[in-house]
Amino acid sequence: MNTLQVALGERSYPIYIGPDLLDQVECYARHIKGKQVLLVTNETVAPLYLHRVLMQLRAYNTAQVILPDGEQYKSLDVLNQIFDTLLANKFGRNATLIALGGGVIGDMGGFAAACYQRGIPFIQIPTTLLAQVDSSVGGKTGVNHPLGKNMIGAFYQPQCVIADTGVLDTLDDRQLSAGLAEVIKYGLIRDAEFFDWLDDNMDALLVRDKKALAYAIERSCMNKAEVVAEDETESGIRATLNLGHTFGHAIETGLGYGEYLHGEAVAIGICQAADLSRRKGWLSDNEMGKIKALLKKARLPVYPPDALSTEQFLQLMSVDKKNVDGEIRLILLKAIGQATLPVGVDEQLLRLTLESYKS
Amino acid sequence: MNTLQVALGERSYPIYIGPDLLDQVECYARHIKGKQVLLVTNETVAPLYLHRVLMQLRAYNTAQVILPDGEQYKSLDVLNQIFDTLLANKFGRNATLIALGGGVIGDMGGFAAACYQRGIPFIQIPTTLLAQVDSSVGGKTGVNHPLGKNMIGAFYQPQCVIADTGVLDTLDDRQLSAGLAEVIKYGLIRDAEFFDWLDDNMDALLVRDKKALAYAIERSCMNKAEVVAEDETESGIRATLNLGHTFGHAIETGLGYGEYLHGEAVAIGICQAADLSRRKGWLSDNEMGKIKALLKKARLPVYPPDALSTEQFLQLMSVDKKNVDGEIRLILLKAIGQATLPVGVDEQLLRLTLESYKS
Repeated sequence: MNTLQVALGERSYPIYIGPDLLDQVECYARHIKGKQVLLVTNETVAPLYLHRVLMQLRAYNTAQVILPDGEQYKSLDVLNQIFDTLLANKFGRNATLIALGGGVIGDMGGFAAACYQRGIPFIQIPTTLLAQVDSSVGGKTGVNHPLGKNMIGAFYQPQCVIADTGVLDTLDDRQLSAGLAEVIKYGLIRDAEFFDWLDDNMDALLVRDKKALAYAIERSCMNKAEVVAEDETESGIRATLNLGHTFGHAIETGLGYGEYLHGEAVAIGICQAADLSRRKGWLSDNEMGKIKALLKKARLPVYPPDALSTEQFLQLMSVDKKNVDGEIRLILLKAIGQATLPVGVDEQLLRLTLESYKS
Repeated sequence: MNTLQVALGERSYPIYIGPDLLDQVECYARHIKGKQVLLVTNETVAPLYLHRVLMQLRAYNTAQVILPDGEQYKSLDVLNQIFDTLLANKFGRNATLIALGGGVIGDMGGFAAACYQRGIPFIQIPTTLLAQVDSSVGGKTGVNHPLGKNMIGAFYQPQCVIADTGVLDTLDDRQLSAGLAEVIKYGLIRDAEFFDWLDDNMDALLVRDKKALAYAIERSCMNKAEVVAEDETESGIRATLNLGHTFGHAIETGLGYGEYLHGEAVAIGICQAADLSRRKGWLSDNEMGKIKALLKKARLPVYPPDALSTEQFLQLMSVDKKNVDGEIRLILLKAIGQATLPVGVDEQLLRLTLESYKS
């Protein structure tokens, strides 16, 4: 087991990474203060892993909420089911919430923990690659609104993150690729050496070579932890983690949550951001080609859906947390391994990217 | 205009207290950073004061949400109307939310600001006595759940509180009395001198003597600000502000939100907490009598509703943020002017209070 630390002063916490951590009681026990524990998971993950987690929690008074699986259920309504269960069980402020699942479960579980009685402790047990390398780390929690992704939420840090690499064995190929989109993102925004390593090792990752996967997860978490430690609430550098996300969120919201996996939408968005960076003269055709090729190798989509028009894209992108007083602001690339802070973009240039970059 | 400061490091903010502050643009302007401002108010307050506030905000891009009036609307569902409006207007992270109303509007507006895009600035303009002396100060925000009051929320501090004492002219008598319950509470938990002053000046307060009201508001806010500065997130002393509230919340939840005003339920709860303190031998019969007499003088109820049985009380009180691992913990009084931290109570003694203390 390897341990990385997210350095946030009194809100610091460890990320445990390794095989079969689900079965190691010490990963949990030191982070649970009270006697009450709520497990939040979904219908896909529950039959696979809930029992193994409960086995380690026999010393506690546990309850569970099993939510439907999918981005379309990351809503205020479904969130309320978590509050219902907490209250029906009379769980108090020293209860601990454990989110066992992918990004949706982690985001909703974390937000429920942030709001229940104005904040109870919580633990992230991410069960997808995407959640292990990205969404479980850094304290962004929340739910979607029909008009915008992740628009309702809180910055709320977990007590720890338990990334059991063994659970990736049951992940389907589409989910694996979706996770790789965020892995590639770290290479693009701040770690060119990692980008090259990914270029060399993508085949090993796709056949789930344990050593390669463990390395990719650790290096991704290390990158994320460094950025979050520097800028917890996204007043600056943390926004770079959003490369491709403004385009991606527009795709997710525009087509209806759940149509594209988050990682798939982000992969397309990364290509669009790269294309815009190229039009600005910051990225060479060669770099652009390398980015697109690596995403394709990871079996990710690189073209936006035809169903979404340029006008719809612009409309959807006008609701984004990086925008200021209505102006669209994006993370772009100066080079592979170097992202910009949010920059206002000329609408004509943005239209060119949106129009040209179709299948 | 008097200014009190709530000292919370980088989250510090002023409370402005005085007549006709609604019309003073400088109270608003220095606390609004962006161009977008959302007014959240209710159907009772809007016709009285919304126009006056909007007059001061002509330089901004404003939108408004007018919610129904009453504690029964302090719910996750109604909260969502605020998010709908923010998103429909494409308001960004530098938009400012202004909560213009009583405790319900302040709690919901503050919670919406805490969650929208993971946090936007907000301003409290309390329009009831209760909101001016208590709920607008200190950053407790949230909504009710059918199973428990204020169970979903956040600690989230405003940019400033604008307490215009002139708006109290339009407050009905029942609302005025409800506010006085929280005013009396400050005397009871930490300010015996203020309790005596209230005893001497209750008649002046009830006829809305401007000088007396202004003094009571300032001294209440001063007490609140001191407690909050010492313990922002209620790990200790802040819990004393909850005197009477566990009983009171049980009444509000048990009878259905909106049946009793919050301050009325708290008045009854204060009597019950005082009774329990007397049974523990901490409070004399004389002190108990003085407390009950002052609440009655303020035209507040002092007997719990017959509709609520002892068993229902116990059941409802078992869901409370001060409880630990299921044990009911209450704020009691050692003397007038001296509250305890949350203490576990013998159930037999609690039953005696609940049973004896009926009309």
